[in-house]
Amino acid sequence: MRKIKIPDIMTVAVLNSYSGPDAIRIEQRPIPTPGKDEVLVKVAFAPINPSDLATLKGTYGFKDPTPIVPGGEGSGEVVAAGRGVMASYFLGKRVACAGWGTGGGVWSEYVVKSVKGGVLPLHKSLSLEQGAMSLINPLTASAFIDISKKGGHKAIALTAAASSLGQMVNRLGRKEGIQIINVVRRDAQVDLLKAQGADIVLNSSETGFDQELYNACHHTNTLLAFDAVAGQITGQLLKAMPPNSKVIVFSALSRQAVQVSPSIIIFENKMVDSFWLGPWISKQNILKIMLLWKRAQKQIPSYLKSEIRKIYPLQEVKEAISDYTDQMTGGKILLRMS
Amino acid sequence: MRKIKIPDIMTVAVLNSYSGPDAIRIEQRPIPTPGKDEVLVKVAFAPINPSDLATLKGTYGFKDPTPIVPGGEGSGEVVAAGRGVMASYFLGKRVACAGWGTGGGVWSEYVVKSVKGGVLPLHKSLSLEQGAMSLINPLTASAFIDISKKGGHKAIALTAAASSLGQMVNRLGRKEGIQIINVVRRDAQVDLLKAQGADIVLNSSETGFDQELYNACHHTNTLLAFDAVAGQITGQLLKAMPPNSKVIVFSALSRQAVQVSPSIIIFENKMVDSFWLGPWISKQNILKIMLLWKRAQKQIPSYLKSEIRKIYPLQEVKEAISDYTDQMTGGKILLRMS
Repeated sequence: MRKIKIPDIMTVAVLNSYSGPDAIRIEQRPIPTPGKDEVLVKVAFAPINPSDLATLKGTYGFKDPTPIVPGGEGSGEVVAAGRGVMASYFLGKRVACAGWGTGGGVWSEYVVKSVKGGVLPLHKSLSLEQGAMSLINPLTASAFIDISKKGGHKAIALTAAASSLGQMVNRLGRKEGIQIINVVRRDAQVDLLKAQGADIVLNSSETGFDQELYNACHHTNTLLAFDAVAGQITGQLLKAMPPNSKVIVFSALSRQAVQVSPSIIIFENKMVDSFWLGPWISKQNILKIMLLWKRAQKQIPSYLKSEIRKIYPLQEVKEAISDYTDQMTGGKILLRMS
Repeated sequence: MRKIKIPDIMTVAVLNSYSGPDAIRIEQRPIPTPGKDEVLVKVAFAPINPSDLATLKGTYGFKDPTPIVPGGEGSGEVVAAGRGVMASYFLGKRVACAGWGTGGGVWSEYVVKSVKGGVLPLHKSLSLEQGAMSLINPLTASAFIDISKKGGHKAIALTAAASSLGQMVNRLGRKEGIQIINVVRRDAQVDLLKAQGADIVLNSSETGFDQELYNACHHTNTLLAFDAVAGQITGQLLKAMPPNSKVIVFSALSRQAVQVSPSIIIFENKMVDSFWLGPWISKQNILKIMLLWKRAQKQIPSYLKSEIRKIYPLQEVKEAISDYTDQMTGGKILLRMS
């Protein structure tokens, strides 16, 4: 077993109550020891995702009793291994690591993770920075395209389309011949997506938006939408799409209840469905997930690339969150653990 | 061909704008002549259904240019037939007739209907009063039970449960071994359903309703709800039901937008779907519909019986609507055409 010097104490971001970023404290904690089929990861980078913001406010799907360590995904190097062949296999390897399951979140200098789904080996072509963002958004974008293709959709609508995820869906969609009707809320986001080659980008803040959305959805026969915003826009999408269409809500950036006209859903046979990455993955065949992961890694330098806007040290996590909240499009904010 | 004396002029209720019951006028019109594959029905009775109220306000799924004749279903006798074998077959027969398709609504002394789906022969055991209510509610209730059984559901939730339809679903549910969690808005409706043998009846106006609904849905593992109300209650149902559940909205008695927490649907994999009788029927195998119709007719004296509260002559249609609107549960209001 390769020997790496591991200190006794690590720096960790700890959330003490589900009341937002102000409830985060930087603490020193003893470094944990990996058990059977577990590894100790020295975390390198972790992005701030919308799901992290929801976690801080207690509105995410996981809500363990506080204190908790936040951080839904990250990258790092495996520096110690517990018992088991798989654990040994990972020793010394660069990995992407999930912030759920054993060991909790990754906004921490070190984290223990299960080798059964907690860590995935990073392809050598990927930097640790890109690897830190290789799970949630790339797999979500891959899932959206997979769902669209399975349903035979040649066109889909997408809200919050200028986000990192939205840009990935656009690039993958173009590759797969799926037309994207992009919905954003600001002119700068229209420009950004158009500059990247998007055909249809609509600004929901403009007058005439509903009619334009209707025209676009009918012209392209768009029967499926992925909605990250919720609130009013879910109902606007359903209203604009042809009969027999469906909106899949996967986030709630508006922090408002989904609002939908009952006559639209009843008389036009429309539906509100949902998507959450974790359960979606666990419903798929493991082979399919490994193939998705392998393909996603290959595509991370291209279709699934995330721009990085700024990197903050873990100690400045609150500033990092504030910066991210001010501008959630245009490039990711990363935390550097040491 | 049997000869029946048919006058030249008939009394008809005409809706002149989609602004509610006040826009109805009683008019005299020439009696129409049936074309090929059509029959002339001398209408006997027609109920007032929630879908009729929606039609008057222009919020129903069909919205032909006014003036229109309202009336979604009724009963009568075929008094003249156009060309075609099927039309001749119906001559002299008592029928249930649909208020959609050729000939329009049935709040009229006479109506022309297509033999292809516009009229169905009434079993001799049925009165014209019961026959007038034999299409919409009985087939809807049968469809709900069919959908529930297909999905393997042993328990379902139901709003506006004290309505005629609600009572039918309860009786059919008991017969088929499907537990019903009934949601109503008044104590009198709780009493009515309990007196009919319902086990679980919850009053949504009472404090503690959400918790009781949660307990009932979890205790019975209720993963499917049929919602006639929309607005807040759709979200309350989804919140109360276990993960992986679905609310099917089929009416909007609250006249409010469906409101659903996005975190509930995303993190608990829940769904809002819809039901509309017409498209549901047209999606089914015709043989299945004929079997459903045959079975429904047999069950109309028992499981699918509708109580009649009062019968008004067509001339008093506005009083009839006002009476129905004041008290939509407890028994149907019928219009008598002549």
